[in-house]
Amino acid sequence: MKVMILGADGYLGWPLALRLMAKGHDVIGVDNFATRKSVEEVGSDSAIPILGMPDRVRAAKDIHGYKMKFHEGDITKYEFLHKVIKEERPDTVVHFAEQRSAPYSMINAKHASYTMSNNIIGTINLVYAIMELDPKIHVVKMATMGEYGTPNFDIPESAFVDADINGKTDRITTPKFGGSWYHWTKVHDTNNLLFANKVWKITTTNIFQGPVYGTRTKEITDEKLHSRFDFDEVWGTVVNRFCAEAVLGIPLTAYGAGGQIRGYLSLEDSMEALNLLIENPAQRGEHRTANQFVELLSINDIADIVKKAAKKQGIDIEVQHLDNPRVEADRHYYNPKIKVLPDLGFKPKLKMADLAPQLIKDLIPYRQRIERFRDRIMPHTQWRRVENAR
Amino acid sequence: MKVMILGADGYLGWPLALRLMAKGHDVIGVDNFATRKSVEEVGSDSAIPILGMPDRVRAAKDIHGYKMKFHEGDITKYEFLHKVIKEERPDTVVHFAEQRSAPYSMINAKHASYTMSNNIIGTINLVYAIMELDPKIHVVKMATMGEYGTPNFDIPESAFVDADINGKTDRITTPKFGGSWYHWTKVHDTNNLLFANKVWKITTTNIFQGPVYGTRTKEITDEKLHSRFDFDEVWGTVVNRFCAEAVLGIPLTAYGAGGQIRGYLSLEDSMEALNLLIENPAQRGEHRTANQFVELLSINDIADIVKKAAKKQGIDIEVQHLDNPRVEADRHYYNPKIKVLPDLGFKPKLKMADLAPQLIKDLIPYRQRIERFRDRIMPHTQWRRVENAR
Repeated sequence: MKVMILGADGYLGWPLALRLMAKGHDVIGVDNFATRKSVEEVGSDSAIPILGMPDRVRAAKDIHGYKMKFHEGDITKYEFLHKVIKEERPDTVVHFAEQRSAPYSMINAKHASYTMSNNIIGTINLVYAIMELDPKIHVVKMATMGEYGTPNFDIPESAFVDADINGKTDRITTPKFGGSWYHWTKVHDTNNLLFANKVWKITTTNIFQGPVYGTRTKEITDEKLHSRFDFDEVWGTVVNRFCAEAVLGIPLTAYGAGGQIRGYLSLEDSMEALNLLIENPAQRGEHRTANQFVELLSINDIADIVKKAAKKQGIDIEVQHLDNPRVEADRHYYNPKIKVLPDLGFKPKLKMADLAPQLIKDLIPYRQRIERFRDRIMPHTQWRRVENAR
Repeated sequence: MKVMILGADGYLGWPLALRLMAKGHDVIGVDNFATRKSVEEVGSDSAIPILGMPDRVRAAKDIHGYKMKFHEGDITKYEFLHKVIKEERPDTVVHFAEQRSAPYSMINAKHASYTMSNNIIGTINLVYAIMELDPKIHVVKMATMGEYGTPNFDIPESAFVDADINGKTDRITTPKFGGSWYHWTKVHDTNNLLFANKVWKITTTNIFQGPVYGTRTKEITDEKLHSRFDFDEVWGTVVNRFCAEAVLGIPLTAYGAGGQIRGYLSLEDSMEALNLLIENPAQRGEHRTANQFVELLSINDIADIVKKAAKKQGIDIEVQHLDNPRVEADRHYYNPKIKVLPDLGFKPKLKMADLAPQLIKDLIPYRQRIERFRDRIMPHTQWRRVENAR
């Protein structure tokens, strides 16, 4: 299968390129290196050093014999995206090329607008290019479980759901409510993809994934093949950030009382799930929704897991509950369904409690690097800007 | 009251400026003249000639003694919008500065992207500028009844609604499904406004208006004060397009079987409703939803009204049912509620059947102008692009 990955330089994009090549697929990477630049912009860096793309491609060749093609470019430029798809004629386009940080989107008007236009225009360009060039191409788009917020209903695995509203029944888009501008761009993308599917029958798999953690996949057998690992308040998701904090021996920065529940999965399990969805595409003309997570855990559960894992490495740490910079519910119902991936044979390999000790061990050699960006860990980006709300 | 109108050069913006000044309010207009340029781009023009903004402002002064301020600029540039709001310190900002044509948004990738970024970024910039400068400012935003599509439930007049989903009850955003990229930008705007209200308590009135028709308001007493009047397939909404067709004596271009029902209102009634919502603002920190229409009519009802009105002017015309270029239901349930405006004292003055003869009469002097753009009336923009969907 010929798979194009938009965002092939990212935390998920690079390991997915390796996984797909390991499975014998042809991979064409595309990236504009926006994440590298934006992480640098907030004064941070990946905890684990990563090579530049030409060296990554060379390392994949030298170590595993994988041959990967790569195009540098920005998919919000229609001509560029149209050209690479026309040249490469992939069977599948995996779309990861979005600004992926909720705090980054909340910094100010400029960052909110950038997130809106980067994410929305990239997706619009993709459906147009595919409609114009070859509607047989399967779009695999990274959505997020965060689109749903924390609803009182069971989160279905479908784009539409039957609802009873004031005594009348209708089939509606599954209700969503984002928790940041970033999350809203993903909601907008999902809606735009549903419309593209309605008018042009674009074949789509829209993946509602929970937060991913970890440093390794089967193919990351050499430090030259590492994926990026962000841990600062803007770019680091909770588990990875906690593990970096553990390595520094500083308290884990839990936001609020810690009752927030989400569905988590490891980088290795994410790769396996993505490979299954790519190798088993949606039906021609179908918009398929897949929920993707392994364990439902609260922030307090995670803090506990990381604390115990740190102890195994001889590190004693505390949990510090900070005022939550975000606007989110601390106690809530949460029951997302998952059936598409299990039906395709998805079997998670590791739980967080099993993997956390190794994750911390992997970070210990980079303690000094992490130490350099220590001041980037505490939350600076506040959702509420109460100083003006008078 | 000091009211800033973003999009003050438009079909609604200009008559609203006149209406508010007639009511004794201070009006500051803002526009980048995008509509004039985009109508020219598709090879069309306003049926009724309109003056440029400096001449409009002068005519309003000479004829009525109104003193209007105007700033030319693009609200998708944050610095510009921030600067004019900071300088002018309005009590209310009316936001009409959006690309408002569904067919224009469906032309191609470039037009879809322009519509997405123009509309979404303008609204994001507005909520940021108000949050940073003065959260007391009331945002009056033009949404559209089209955000709802044609649902089986009764369309409530509220941003949220209780829904029963698989046996569980939750309060969800009122379900929406746009019929074009343009309509989706309005859905995205509504969601973004709800989020801005949640995190920053931005005071908002979000107006779900139906299609507006007509040439006149009480203040348009001189041809120098006319508002634009679009009639081509891209920019002309259905009633105005039908009346222009009647003036040419050509068949009315009804899309599909003509069963599509929407809520219509005249330009005069729209101005009165808008004035009421501005003079009676939402509560501080409230997100208020107002539905705004006068009559529920089908395309066939409208064709019938225009046909009869033309007959009164001695013009015999037929109705031509074209293959619907849009993707929309031809027979459907439609029951939107309306209470906010009636509770404020809104009393519609004219029904379409009363107003249509005068509308046609107003267009007759411009018959030759309309004739020049006759080839711009038939639909060219197809929602489905079946040639590639194989």
